[in-house]
Amino acid sequence: MIIVMKPDASQSHIRKVVEVLEKNHLKAHLSKGKQLTIIGVIGDKSVLSEANLEAMDGVERLVPITESYKLSNKKFKPEPSVIKVKGFSIGGGRFSIVAGPCSVESREQLLKTARFLKTQGVCFLRGGAFKPRTSPYAFQGLGQQGLEYLKEAAEETGMAIVTEVTSMKTLEIAIDYADVFQIGARNMHSFELLKEVGKAGKPVVLKRGLSATIDEWLNAAEYIMREGNNRVILCERGIRTFETATRNTLDISAIPVIRNKSHLPVLIDPSHATGVRDYIVPLCKAAMAVGADGIMVEVHPAPSEALSDGAQSLDFEDFKKMLSELKPLAELCGKVMDR
Amino acid sequence: MIIVMKPDASQSHIRKVVEVLEKNHLKAHLSKGKQLTIIGVIGDKSVLSEANLEAMDGVERLVPITESYKLSNKKFKPEPSVIKVKGFSIGGGRFSIVAGPCSVESREQLLKTARFLKTQGVCFLRGGAFKPRTSPYAFQGLGQQGLEYLKEAAEETGMAIVTEVTSMKTLEIAIDYADVFQIGARNMHSFELLKEVGKAGKPVVLKRGLSATIDEWLNAAEYIMREGNNRVILCERGIRTFETATRNTLDISAIPVIRNKSHLPVLIDPSHATGVRDYIVPLCKAAMAVGADGIMVEVHPAPSEALSDGAQSLDFEDFKKMLSELKPLAELCGKVMDR
Amino acid sequence: MIIVMKPDASQSHIRKVVEVLEKNHLKAHLSKGKQLTIIGVIGDKSVLSEANLEAMDGVERLVPITESYKLSNKKFKPEPSVIKVKGFSIGGGRFSIVAGPCSVESREQLLKTARFLKTQGVCFLRGGAFKPRTSPYAFQGLGQQGLEYLKEAAEETGMAIVTEVTSMKTLEIAIDYADVFQIGARNMHSFELLKEVGKAGKPVVLKRGLSATIDEWLNAAEYIMREGNNRVILCERGIRTFETATRNTLDISAIPVIRNKSHLPVLIDPSHATGVRDYIVPLCKAAMAVGADGIMVEVHPAPSEALSDGAQSLDFEDFKKMLSELKPLAELCGKVMDR
Amino acid sequence: MIIVMKPDASQSHIRKVVEVLEKNHLKAHLSKGKQLTIIGVIGDKSVLSEANLEAMDGVERLVPITESYKLSNKKFKPEPSVIKVKGFSIGGGRFSIVAGPCSVESREQLLKTARFLKTQGVCFLRGGAFKPRTSPYAFQGLGQQGLEYLKEAAEETGMAIVTEVTSMKTLEIAIDYADVFQIGARNMHSFELLKEVGKAGKPVVLKRGLSATIDEWLNAAEYIMREGNNRVILCERGIRTFETATRNTLDISAIPVIRNKSHLPVLIDPSHATGVRDYIVPLCKAAMAVGADGIMVEVHPAPSEALSDGAQSLDFEDFKKMLSELKPLAELCGKVMDR
Repeated sequence: MIIVMKPDASQSHIRKVVEVLEKNHLKAHLSKGKQLTIIGVIGDKSVLSEANLEAMDGVERLVPITESYKLSNKKFKPEPSVIKVKGFSIGGGRFSIVAGPCSVESREQLLKTARFLKTQGVCFLRGGAFKPRTSPYAFQGLGQQGLEYLKEAAEETGMAIVTEVTSMKTLEIAIDYADVFQIGARNMHSFELLKEVGKAGKPVVLKRGLSATIDEWLNAAEYIMREGNNRVILCERGIRTFETATRNTLDISAIPVIRNKSHLPVLIDPSHATGVRDYIVPLCKAAMAVGADGIMVEVHPAPSEALSDGAQSLDFEDFKKMLSELKPLAELCGKVMDR
Repeated sequence: MIIVMKPDASQSHIRKVVEVLEKNHLKAHLSKGKQLTIIGVIGDKSVLSEANLEAMDGVERLVPITESYKLSNKKFKPEPSVIKVKGFSIGGGRFSIVAGPCSVESREQLLKTARFLKTQGVCFLRGGAFKPRTSPYAFQGLGQQGLEYLKEAAEETGMAIVTEVTSMKTLEIAIDYADVFQIGARNMHSFELLKEVGKAGKPVVLKRGLSATIDEWLNAAEYIMREGNNRVILCERGIRTFETATRNTLDISAIPVIRNKSHLPVLIDPSHATGVRDYIVPLCKAAMAVGADGIMVEVHPAPSEALSDGAQSLDFEDFKKMLSELKPLAELCGKVMDR
Repeated sequence: MIIVMKPDASQSHIRKVVEVLEKNHLKAHLSKGKQLTIIGVIGDKSVLSEANLEAMDGVERLVPITESYKLSNKKFKPEPSVIKVKGFSIGGGRFSIVAGPCSVESREQLLKTARFLKTQGVCFLRGGAFKPRTSPYAFQGLGQQGLEYLKEAAEETGMAIVTEVTSMKTLEIAIDYADVFQIGARNMHSFELLKEVGKAGKPVVLKRGLSATIDEWLNAAEYIMREGNNRVILCERGIRTFETATRNTLDISAIPVIRNKSHLPVLIDPSHATGVRDYIVPLCKAAMAVGADGIMVEVHPAPSEALSDGAQSLDFEDFKKMLSELKPLAELCGKVMDR
Repeated sequence: MIIVMKPDASQSHIRKVVEVLEKNHLKAHLSKGKQLTIIGVIGDKSVLSEANLEAMDGVERLVPITESYKLSNKKFKPEPSVIKVKGFSIGGGRFSIVAGPCSVESREQLLKTARFLKTQGVCFLRGGAFKPRTSPYAFQGLGQQGLEYLKEAAEETGMAIVTEVTSMKTLEIAIDYADVFQIGARNMHSFELLKEVGKAGKPVVLKRGLSATIDEWLNAAEYIMREGNNRVILCERGIRTFETATRNTLDISAIPVIRNKSHLPVLIDPSHATGVRDYIVPLCKAAMAVGADGIMVEVHPAPSEALSDGAQSLDFEDFKKMLSELKPLAELCGKVMDR
């Protein structure tokens, strides 16, 4: 960390800052320029919670240099993580596909989708039973009944279930059904929930918050990992910007940035990123080319009859076509697609 | 709602959309232009969850016209709401001050602050016992012990306690201590938590999410109100933008927008909006002038020793000076300041 | 400036960076931590254009510490600037009002507005003759004819003319008419134009770019001032964010930030910031309370017949009402309103 | 266009709006709901500049339905445009590479780069002679001397020159040298400059503005095309968001959106989008996979000695490696790479 002093900071201000640092067993390196003084801080700055340096007299601002996340940080574990789920893997040269309807709507809808995806070699079945919706009057999901259908589909097909949990209550219900928990964008900052899914011990797909920086996202992963759960899969799903042609703006650069900073695998969700079916296939191909570890994509037997997000769902024909375009690309990019 | 059809939508596409609308007892008004057809939808569109119109063939996009929130909507309750808490009021011509430390750190710190605020006529004491922090390694609050201190301070001073709840678990603990629950920006989209604070029946300060639109914010209020709890106080605390000179960007226009759309009272929190002590007083004055119902502001006996957010806290002298500037302004603006 | 080296930077990488600094007569202060090395750079870093330090091997990133603007910087001229225009002043305890129609549309419209504003004591008449419009098919302004009308109005009323220039060509035409040039948000980054208005020697209202940081804004002022023209008036007019309830988001915190960083006066334009007439008066009051040096506001004799931006224009009655609310506020805030 | 009336709009308000529409030979379709009335407007709304409907009594807001751009609109020219430059093509199944240094710095630097690129089959040489820089104290380019070097390089290698113009003055100088004009992000909204490059008749690479919506970007293209110049090549170079891990956020979804709305070819510039060399190659591959018509990329013989943007420039080895990764991808995607 670097402490930038105000131009008019006095000697006494500087001395007091240095004293606080030394009291905390940190080394202070002073650099005095004509205009201002900067203090480099060397040592474990986590001890500094006792003092609020930024509020000290004469201090202009603090510039953090090292990241606050450790377990998710590539510096401390350089080799990429491979997450094992029910015999399947995410990361480590695989390009995984997590597919299924936005919401579980009925037994037929889910089984039909799962059976279809199974024939396509998909290993991860997604489906929401608890749906966080902007309006309380919108369809909120089938709840536990939806989880029952997911379980039935998983048992029949052998697929792994990925499903969202939105609170401790829904976590407690879902724990008997889910193979992978999903934390949605709207809950990425719900730290209490992150701790709970950390303790639950199942793998977690952690979506990036609507306006979360990559740094905050990796700190959210840290909340989960710190509870002893290393099986975190990141998922970029678009960030909020001024552009309205797409629902969100897919931050595709997040993939190489994550590769550079973390060992965790990272997926792309083009359905939520754009909200427009026609843009999904090109973005899935981009996800492969940029080096993502897979995609999360909405598939529905009859998108126009979907109870949520039909406009961003592929139908079965679209999905098959997408796979046929992705496969040669995977080969070229040296990625193994499921099965 | 308006349905804009694609330029190449066929007669049959249009007919099918109209059929779906009529099946749902909605009226469809067709406007056929040279380039495209638009369909005005008249009636209660909440019944439409059965069909995903946006995914139907020939449909380009849907344009919502009416708001999805009702209980928080001024159209259905034109007169401004006044929220009663422990004999105090928020809204209705008052300019309320909610003040106190970001985190409760110790008995001394809190009592000292509360006693000081009491002498200044402040009625609402804020203090965090459960702190949502970006990094899991940062100070997370004193928990229940912090609530005990808050209670002691409230009993001694007669002030009302405003404190944040971050999950159902912390809500269950805080219910015996808090007079007003606070939902922080990071949890504004945690719909399950919103429902729970709705059920708990105590007044709620609902902070705007980091990147929540005003429409989403009012929908979040709707989640609380729909559980039968009408005592919601909105709080604008800055939104996330590209600007880095302040921690967030205070959206001061949100105050007249809210006045235009909702009957709920709305506060401004300049501490979190800017993160810089020097900017707090001018923004509190702007809050008064723009017509806000009050402010939420961080006060600490010794900001440079604070365990969180010291850089954005006023000390006692600053706070007194602020009050002396706000009082004549309140008189001019026709606002009654507490006590 | 601080240079943060990569964790795996070698001794030789560090040595080479230090050599480049020393070759440029800069001092390097090394701080070696367990994880990484940081290099504080002391001296005039403007000489560094010869080397691209960020691209050197072993360098992770550069952290700028001092601002790159000098003439607009408060550090080098602490007392606030007062800009003199045709006998009127902006800054230094005044609250100036720049008012008039968005576009000059006709002789009658302009004269009627100018005469009205004159009776209200307004000194600065705004009106666009060259209008930058998103679509080439929208009304682009009356051009030189519009300037003629402005001149006639100024001669009759004695007001000072503020009008936008959009290119060197329109600058050359406007130079014979304008008392103050306005650089619009869309041209804040047009550096060649900034240099030209700098050379032209007349005062300049410099609007903040749609997505310009405050730092970039002050650098834009620097482009003008470096040509020997110190009469720059900043104008905050809203920045682009995800919020759609207002056309832009007024960044009111920019006022205290500018006060902290620069000696230049700063206005607020609530018409462009919100695009909604009903929000203008509350925001003008907030502008006064937060300490702005004035406002720029659209006034039109018949807003619903305006050729541009009628929805954000006040009519004469609205304007009078606004003044009657601002005047007592000015007195309280210790501001002198024009005349 | 749709006009949404306020809930309390009177019959007389509605009648007046309809009268204005009919006076302008537009048809009005009324849809009266329980809560509000909407008016669909059918006909050529460009005639409406005479009335500012949004400011009329009783009008809540206008909802545009059709795009305001026509010449750049796919609806009016469905087949993709192929832009011819000096015997080379952009668009129509080609994947074009525009490469070269950010700034022309010296004769050697440029010739060395051009000769190298020539051996790699690159047809378009980029290089800035007039550099728009945030600070007036940063290197501003070699000016006309830089253009001379570009011309020499072009004559020797047969490549086409792409170079930025920043004002009418620099346009007049560059017209004797450039094969393709580039309009930078900071000038995308400089409508006067757009008109001038439209008149100049040479092909134009039009970069997207820092915070321009796709709609505004296509309107900027319209400014150029309306002057009779159809040879516009769009270039996505990242938009401004809250994320700081990359300089800007590459909006890769803009490619399928543009495909959907316009017939113009579109490139991706990953150098400016990220500002980080390590992220360029993955993003170039994503550009190919998503269906872009090419890339614009910075190449420098010795990035660490570059006078601008060295940190985002590839060296010769990096560039060769990138090509070797792109070529098989191009084959798979059915794209022809230059030569």
